[in-house]
Amino acid sequence: MNFAIVRYLIGWLMGIESLFLLLPAFTAVIYREPELPAYIATALICMVGAGILCEYKPKNTKFYAREGFVAVALCWLVLAVTGALPFVLSREIPFAVDAIFEAASGFTTTGATILGDVEALSHASMLWRCLMHWVGGMGILVFMLIVLPLAGGQTIYLMRAESPGPSVSKISPHMRDTALILYAIYFGLTVLQIILLLFGGMPMFDAICVSLGTAGTGGFGNWNDSIAHYDSAYLQNVISVFMILFGINFNAYFLLLTRKFKQLFKIEEIRVYLGVIAVFTTLIAFNVRGCFGSLRESFHHSLFQVASIITTTGFSTVDFNQWPAFSKLLLVLLMFIGACAGSTGGGMKCSRILLLFKGVKKEMMSLIHPRLVRVHKMDGQRVQHEVMRSVNAFLVAYLIVIATSILIVSLHCEDMVTSFTSVVTCINNVGPGLNQVGPAANFGALHPLSKIVLTFDMLAGRLELFPMLLLFAPETWRRNR
Amino acid sequence: MNFAIVRYLIGWLMGIESLFLLLPAFTAVIYREPELPAYIATALICMVGAGILCEYKPKNTKFYAREGFVAVALCWLVLAVTGALPFVLSREIPFAVDAIFEAASGFTTTGATILGDVEALSHASMLWRCLMHWVGGMGILVFMLIVLPLAGGQTIYLMRAESPGPSVSKISPHMRDTALILYAIYFGLTVLQIILLLFGGMPMFDAICVSLGTAGTGGFGNWNDSIAHYDSAYLQNVISVFMILFGINFNAYFLLLTRKFKQLFKIEEIRVYLGVIAVFTTLIAFNVRGCFGSLRESFHHSLFQVASIITTTGFSTVDFNQWPAFSKLLLVLLMFIGACAGSTGGGMKCSRILLLFKGVKKEMMSLIHPRLVRVHKMDGQRVQHEVMRSVNAFLVAYLIVIATSILIVSLHCEDMVTSFTSVVTCINNVGPGLNQVGPAANFGALHPLSKIVLTFDMLAGRLELFPMLLLFAPETWRRNR
Repeated sequence: MNFAIVRYLIGWLMGIESLFLLLPAFTAVIYREPELPAYIATALICMVGAGILCEYKPKNTKFYAREGFVAVALCWLVLAVTGALPFVLSREIPFAVDAIFEAASGFTTTGATILGDVEALSHASMLWRCLMHWVGGMGILVFMLIVLPLAGGQTIYLMRAESPGPSVSKISPHMRDTALILYAIYFGLTVLQIILLLFGGMPMFDAICVSLGTAGTGGFGNWNDSIAHYDSAYLQNVISVFMILFGINFNAYFLLLTRKFKQLFKIEEIRVYLGVIAVFTTLIAFNVRGCFGSLRESFHHSLFQVASIITTTGFSTVDFNQWPAFSKLLLVLLMFIGACAGSTGGGMKCSRILLLFKGVKKEMMSLIHPRLVRVHKMDGQRVQHEVMRSVNAFLVAYLIVIATSILIVSLHCEDMVTSFTSVVTCINNVGPGLNQVGPAANFGALHPLSKIVLTFDMLAGRLELFPMLLLFAPETWRRNR
Repeated sequence: MNFAIVRYLIGWLMGIESLFLLLPAFTAVIYREPELPAYIATALICMVGAGILCEYKPKNTKFYAREGFVAVALCWLVLAVTGALPFVLSREIPFAVDAIFEAASGFTTTGATILGDVEALSHASMLWRCLMHWVGGMGILVFMLIVLPLAGGQTIYLMRAESPGPSVSKISPHMRDTALILYAIYFGLTVLQIILLLFGGMPMFDAICVSLGTAGTGGFGNWNDSIAHYDSAYLQNVISVFMILFGINFNAYFLLLTRKFKQLFKIEEIRVYLGVIAVFTTLIAFNVRGCFGSLRESFHHSLFQVASIITTTGFSTVDFNQWPAFSKLLLVLLMFIGACAGSTGGGMKCSRILLLFKGVKKEMMSLIHPRLVRVHKMDGQRVQHEVMRSVNAFLVAYLIVIATSILIVSLHCEDMVTSFTSVVTCINNVGPGLNQVGPAANFGALHPLSKIVLTFDMLAGRLELFPMLLLFAPETWRRNR
């Protein structure tokens, strides 16, 4: 383990964070809010931290998968702790466990909150919450671009052109260029959404916050009733569309920009993603039609909720906890499915789901024809054995973390639906769950131990599990390699 | 597809069933019950069916995996339908969907009942329910011994000596001998349990029924309060021990009989199985100690319940639906784990769980050391790639069936805990679930559609999913091969 490089990277991260902290500080200045010192102080702390950690450049710059995973896991932990500082210092969220939960929920783009009254927050903190989503979403793109490929063939986000199936494929020969292109797309889409929301009459501050939250597929809102506050079908539909857009594999936008339409239509994952949205929206719209005046309205809210949950954003236009059990369970299922790989969305990802289904189909065929040798294919290319193995191991690790977390949460929560959905919504970075953590409720009433477990789940889910799990493996910390 | 051989096998099965039906008929004679004609009529129907189906011996006796799976799936369906006939004919369970649910629950060794008042049944029907468990358990042993190995390397119940890890390994060179030895062990253990229960003062009829139900890891009881009726720690402990014994890989008994102790202690699955029982019993005993007078009593009931659920028997000494959420969730987790492969128990099986954990461990190691090549090992032997693939495909198929079933059940059931646990308890062949299908309740109030789905789940779970799923694959029914 090359500790020096990990230390150096964390220093860099803190430096970048201190710059981002200037934005809420600036907001506090505009709105003349007393939270200004809290943000200035946090920015200074991060800058000093960056200075100390980056003082000596590491001699050994070798950087393998192990260093990558540890660095990423520690970076997100540092983000959660430092991101919580302004809340604690300003006394807006005085309890540290709560503040760290909120910041982790921000940077992991989850959007689950412990706040009962979001509207009581300062503008600075409102912006900071949504900015954490946006920065977190950006961080995930870096992670998928630079860190995961180091594991070489183990992940589903491979950068190599010959990579099988789901991947941010060889967008550009140079990684730095690739990153810049992705950021440009991310930034461009965010600005476009802000403009379209302003056009619909949303106030500037809200438009910025909502768009930052949509881009990161986060879901923190500035109003207690989330997007229901904006009683305009236009605004809600714009948000629905952008949630769906931010849940698509970013590779698709690159192919679109370079007019490689043939390759674009080959991406099976996107077809599955859009197909799932269409089917689930229809099923829910008919199931909940009794709750609304017309089928049209039922479809409107159904589409918004499906888009919000599959992309793991977590905005809401209605309290879906009041919907029939069938619709609620469909939404819970969507939490597991998640968005496309290579997007800012969470969950298992459509590509993994697709590969898992293909695995079952292959197994059934081989039971009927034991001597037939078949290969997995995706997007017309052969799927490597290692990718299937990795996807299967992911599923198992995911189930183990979920089961363990539910058990710990249930120690202090007698409602099993709450225990179950709080874990599911956190590990999939969605936001709201059902019952006591439904869209009209919040995570504030949970036991501190539960909040710590759910914070871990948010971080683990966001980083595709293994970086966080590897922190607990003694093998990771051995010096010799 | 060789239809002739499938037809012939179903005929044989009906012939055997007609013989077993004579036992409840005989019981009806002893107790002078009016249900006698129902059992005689069903036995005759089965005999006539057997005669028609077996009249022509198939010319082509080739029997591949495909024929094996289809035959097994159809056999269990035929058992469920014919086994339900006496209930319908005697008007004890007049509604066909209910009667088929009950018979499927019997033959799949589930033990879930639609009856609110079990004690109102005739002795004949009481015996028939428990006899179905016993016959079903025996059937599963045949299935694992003769049908599954046809798929060649695809399953975890391989008969070959070189088979990796979990298996009913090469017990004897001749399959027929092997089957006889297993049956002798099964029969011997059942008789031993009857004797020990009689010794504790249990009436003869009850001792037979309880032992038949324990052997098949079924769980139908003759009393509304299940095993709580026998208010004797001795009797309850005997049942606890025998449930655990019937959940062990039967290979272990053969190794014990032939004094191959070294091989016996190598079986990792059994160590996991006993370890899980010990850990879960302790956790639950401390969690529920407030419900009982002493920690000793708490341990007593905790052990009984853990043994009952992990072996997927489903007997109960208390209404565990009243226990704290943590204990209830531990029990639900046990439903998923299940007993050992090569036993009459259901669930995922300890060996699969063990292999899945090993898969995660391997993945984590390969992330730390990407160039290191590692192989899976179990019981000191290398696990073939196909076995891992098969276990992973099983997990995915299992999750798909569970999710789909829960959704359908939820259409007519607003309580999500009931929907969830009814499916989980049925697919794992346990018996009781939680809330409306808890140990003190029954499945009678569910919607007929839900009962049909749960009947399918019981059958699918019992046959390791794929035989039932293959019935729906068009590829299975093609004539050419």
